[in-house]
Amino acid sequence: MATQPERLMAEMGARARAAQRLLAAAPTATKADALRAMAAAIRADAADILAANACDMAGADALSPAMRDRLKLTEARIEGIAAALEQVAALPDPVGETIRAWRQPNGLTFRRVRVPLGVIGIIFESRPNVTADAGALCLMAGNACILRGGSDATESSRAIHRCLLAGLDAAGLPADAIQLAPTADRAFVGAMLGASGLIDVIIPRGGKNLVARVQAEARVPVLAHLDGNNHVYVDAAADTDMARAIVVNAKMRRIGVCGAMETLLIDRAFSDARALLTTLLDAGCECRVSSELIGLDARLKPVAPEDWDTEYLDAVCAVGLVDGVEGAIAHIAAHGSAHTDAIVTEDAAVAERFLAAVDSAIVLWNASTQFADGGEFGFGAEIGIATGRLHARGPVALEGLTSYKTLVMGSGQVRRG
Amino acid sequence: MATQPERLMAEMGARARAAQRLLAAAPTATKADALRAMAAAIRADAADILAANACDMAGADALSPAMRDRLKLTEARIEGIAAALEQVAALPDPVGETIRAWRQPNGLTFRRVRVPLGVIGIIFESRPNVTADAGALCLMAGNACILRGGSDATESSRAIHRCLLAGLDAAGLPADAIQLAPTADRAFVGAMLGASGLIDVIIPRGGKNLVARVQAEARVPVLAHLDGNNHVYVDAAADTDMARAIVVNAKMRRIGVCGAMETLLIDRAFSDARALLTTLLDAGCECRVSSELIGLDARLKPVAPEDWDTEYLDAVCAVGLVDGVEGAIAHIAAHGSAHTDAIVTEDAAVAERFLAAVDSAIVLWNASTQFADGGEFGFGAEIGIATGRLHARGPVALEGLTSYKTLVMGSGQVRRG
Repeated sequence: MATQPERLMAEMGARARAAQRLLAAAPTATKADALRAMAAAIRADAADILAANACDMAGADALSPAMRDRLKLTEARIEGIAAALEQVAALPDPVGETIRAWRQPNGLTFRRVRVPLGVIGIIFESRPNVTADAGALCLMAGNACILRGGSDATESSRAIHRCLLAGLDAAGLPADAIQLAPTADRAFVGAMLGASGLIDVIIPRGGKNLVARVQAEARVPVLAHLDGNNHVYVDAAADTDMARAIVVNAKMRRIGVCGAMETLLIDRAFSDARALLTTLLDAGCECRVSSELIGLDARLKPVAPEDWDTEYLDAVCAVGLVDGVEGAIAHIAAHGSAHTDAIVTEDAAVAERFLAAVDSAIVLWNASTQFADGGEFGFGAEIGIATGRLHARGPVALEGLTSYKTLVMGSGQVRRG
Repeated sequence: MATQPERLMAEMGARARAAQRLLAAAPTATKADALRAMAAAIRADAADILAANACDMAGADALSPAMRDRLKLTEARIEGIAAALEQVAALPDPVGETIRAWRQPNGLTFRRVRVPLGVIGIIFESRPNVTADAGALCLMAGNACILRGGSDATESSRAIHRCLLAGLDAAGLPADAIQLAPTADRAFVGAMLGASGLIDVIIPRGGKNLVARVQAEARVPVLAHLDGNNHVYVDAAADTDMARAIVVNAKMRRIGVCGAMETLLIDRAFSDARALLTTLLDAGCECRVSSELIGLDARLKPVAPEDWDTEYLDAVCAVGLVDGVEGAIAHIAAHGSAHTDAIVTEDAAVAERFLAAVDSAIVLWNASTQFADGGEFGFGAEIGIATGRLHARGPVALEGLTSYKTLVMGSGQVRRG
């Protein structure tokens, strides 16, 4: 006997499927028009959105300052939401793109073309802008979506959603293209996670508890990343100034992002480990180091075994010495989370070895791990980063929100044998 | 407390992971050498394999003739296994292939390259050759695999596996690249289905009960197809002779394959529906038709509503009239299983409409649905057909057994902002 959340999920799922059939065939210009109309509505209704956000903020006293900051909307942030919608409107439409074309000796020609994924479920926390960002990306790739945000942002999300509906209507697209799921009932999340056949993929955006729950419980495929225990390896042949700049940017540019460096590995043969540590310490980073390094600065702390497996998401990192690139590769294989890892070296052969052997979603040579981002990859936008091995790995943008079909053109061929 | 099958799965999974690290770095020539050595071992040990198969056949009295036929090995079929191994050895190695390369204005260059998926679980029934076929494809794409075949084929699979081990050993590859799971304990299948983190994807090969169970229970991602309720739509503008040839081939070439036609849709405006029906009936196919058609031949039977949703896998099909290509598109959307659907027409605009609107894994114009096969697609081999929307859709071959990573090459770039 289906529960009430399951019945509601089935109903929303059916509406999403019906809407998605229309979206799959929608011309690019129509989708772009809808997104630009949404942006206009966001700007026109900024006062309403701010008022709704004030309601949410009033009920958010118990949240930490960081959480309140994620929840808060300002005029500038609302303008940012509108601008992001316009950016998505300008992205190339992936639907219908020919991925590959080929021919067989019997005369059949084949064309693999992109189609929308279908119905996408986004489960997110805190940031009201995700309502607009995720809705926009799903729409541009021809998908219908069901958005389930955090209860803290209920009024803000609703106000933003009203603007999205206005944009859809203005362009003649169905309202069920972007549905908001109820936030009051926590059980609805479970209904989404179990909605095989109704939802084609779920993308969680939020803290580790949320992502871990989704990955553990979902029967529906999930695109997500959980851990970003990222490494920067400074090789003996690294340029010291480049290494210092990369290391401090990788750790300290933004400490809470999934692309932040968590462990620094230094080649035992590198000539100036102290310079790297000083740069980090001076920037305010606590460095937990192996015994060989601890005498290099009074501010250093000793590393413990669990530090190698810890993602701090804070101004803390673990630092150890390794025996060359092979030592780095082995350490990363043992402790990394296959998210983002980087090497700094001037030795191209060593770099190629690292790039070939490290099996992370993103592997960098002479660049900061903080480039782990769809915008920095040139994708124009990002719905999240995935570290699973199927479908999409790394930043997921419009292409990751598509599937494909194969068209076969013949002249009457039948199969023998 | 882990059960005994779960402990065994964890142990086999750890061995598979360790082996896979070596396979990921194995040169193409080494993998090809292993496969050719396997083929040689299969030929050299043909007598042993036949003897093992005789044991399996002796225990298979209770099976249907069709099942006994799938289980049975002959000298010709063993030669086929060896030949298939050599074909895979000759396929292009997908590992390391550059999928895409691009540059960002800040000077970073990006390269998306193929990497192996990792550890693949194959759960299959009846056909001992799958042990070799699946093992070979996984290996060529740099994956380790765990093969769990049906208990009917236990001795045959073991004998073939011994030859695979000999080939791995001859090329210096680890034995744990291809592991055989126990067949006696049905609970081991459940342990595989729940082996998140140990197995990266599961591919079931077998009957609907098996596939349905896997899809319902697996916590691990699955590449599979369940239903092949395929359609051929004969448009008013179809060439009658071409339509007859395609329709009878699509149904009757092999009635038990997933690409077989199950429903024939005829444009109300097509001039010679009788010719299509006669061709099918003369070939031995039972046709269940709508009332408008039943007078066309005494052998015709009436269609019932459930026939539109039935995959017969037999010399039976449903036949109905539709109002042009829009009627066909609507019928397929309502009743199809998004596997393989075809249109026969000389009107290119109508064909383009059908190709664009039908969202099946494979959509054909003027060719038989029986081309739904990796070999016919030019992939050289096929590990199965997938109709899910993520990762791979349609025939899954070497490329479908890979993931990718993104390499980022810089000259010291750090991220601003």
